[in-house]
Amino acid sequence: MISSTVLFYGTYVLCLCLGLLCVVFVSYWNIEWRGGFAWDASFLQFNWHPVLMVTGLVVLYGNAAILYRIPFTWSQRKQHWKLVHAALLLSSLILSILGLCAVFDFHTGYHIPNLYSLHSWVGICTVVLFTAQWLLGLVGFLSPCSPLGFRKLLKPVHAWMGMAIFILSLASCLSGINEKLLLALNGNSNSTAAYSSHPAEALFANFLGVLIVAFGLVVLGILSNQRWNRLEPGEESSRVSILLSAVIS
Amino acid sequence: MISSTVLFYGTYVLCLCLGLLCVVFVSYWNIEWRGGFAWDASFLQFNWHPVLMVTGLVVLYGNAAILYRIPFTWSQRKQHWKLVHAALLLSSLILSILGLCAVFDFHTGYHIPNLYSLHSWVGICTVVLFTAQWLLGLVGFLSPCSPLGFRKLLKPVHAWMGMAIFILSLASCLSGINEKLLLALNGNSNSTAAYSSHPAEALFANFLGVLIVAFGLVVLGILSNQRWNRLEPGEESSRVSILLSAVIS
Repeated sequence: MISSTVLFYGTYVLCLCLGLLCVVFVSYWNIEWRGGFAWDASFLQFNWHPVLMVTGLVVLYGNAAILYRIPFTWSQRKQHWKLVHAALLLSSLILSILGLCAVFDFHTGYHIPNLYSLHSWVGICTVVLFTAQWLLGLVGFLSPCSPLGFRKLLKPVHAWMGMAIFILSLASCLSGINEKLLLALNGNSNSTAAYSSHPAEALFANFLGVLIVAFGLVVLGILSNQRWNRLEPGEESSRVSILLSAVIS
Repeated sequence: MISSTVLFYGTYVLCLCLGLLCVVFVSYWNIEWRGGFAWDASFLQFNWHPVLMVTGLVVLYGNAAILYRIPFTWSQRKQHWKLVHAALLLSSLILSILGLCAVFDFHTGYHIPNLYSLHSWVGICTVVLFTAQWLLGLVGFLSPCSPLGFRKLLKPVHAWMGMAIFILSLASCLSGINEKLLLALNGNSNSTAAYSSHPAEALFANFLGVLIVAFGLVVLGILSNQRWNRLEPGEESSRVSILLSAVIS
């Protein structure tokens, strides 16, 4: 039991470090090679898009998703941690919506149509699903008048949707970095020479993609490890009876 | 129990239909808008790349991953289904490697460097991990001299790595479709007008991406549903005792 807890905290520290590195890398990329930030419907406003999406939709979201897995929280009232979970996800949602505003404003400024690429389709679906998931979570798990039967029904759907949204956010970020590099580096050239000649920016941003993958896999690893689930006495007893009947029969 | 089985088969049929649609859509895209197929280091050889990757790395792989979840197989010897699982994954791996050959040959023919985009980095990592996973699975689960302790240790790692490879393959395919459309539709133009003007090809290929996402989420939904796990008597009894001790304490 101790070794499982130690292993969890080791994995958790790795997760925090990878998340921090993702935020540092996406910010540095846009400061060093893309000219930094502004909120004036220019290219500099677009630069907020990757920073806000990676920070909100990947790093904050991932950390909110694994909150209940931290053994430190198990001895405390779940209601408090539900509020922390909801607050972290609300911050993540606000950053994601700001990230969408950044790209929509930039498109309007440069008369570029919205939502034409597969990246944008997957990205907008992710944020719409995330909004629905957050509102349903608020009604289902934080509202005092939500019936227990509804909560029980909602819980596996909430957990599954949460994982699906996270996987979609990873895919959106990876395809987005790839799209940005193709558009920005190839620019006015007629070939893929610029990106394909391995410039420092491309290597750096590709490595950011690798960090996002690593962070995502660590988060999903924590979520999929049954040993690191918070024990819910009511649920456990029903799971035991299901398993017992399966073994006995 | 009956309703869970019916629900499984409903989900399974949905999964099969979505997989079939993915293969039909990716083939039709390359026949209708990209000129069809050849194996002559031309653009037509490249067209095998998306078809082989989507068919091998997503559809066949996903179906192999959920094989043990089919209730029909539970009453039969697991060893037979292990062989089917391994054979399906070997077919998937061979198609994926052929898909890589298609793009490498095309790059060589047109003097385009290999492995410069984030899509290619994630894609090549996916196939390398898949090869390692298949070989380790062969040694660990099909070799008669593999010790039981090693199998027990390997099983959760194998299941986790399998899911991680599938998520990476989904991200690779989505970023690949996006990259292909950006390069092929914008072509010699200096702007993103071509892709951004929503031509029929772009809508069709974007919809292929949506189908891949839907297929992936259904497969991951099946994998994450504890009720649809094949019951392993040895494992179940140990899980029961762990859960019982957790409830009693």
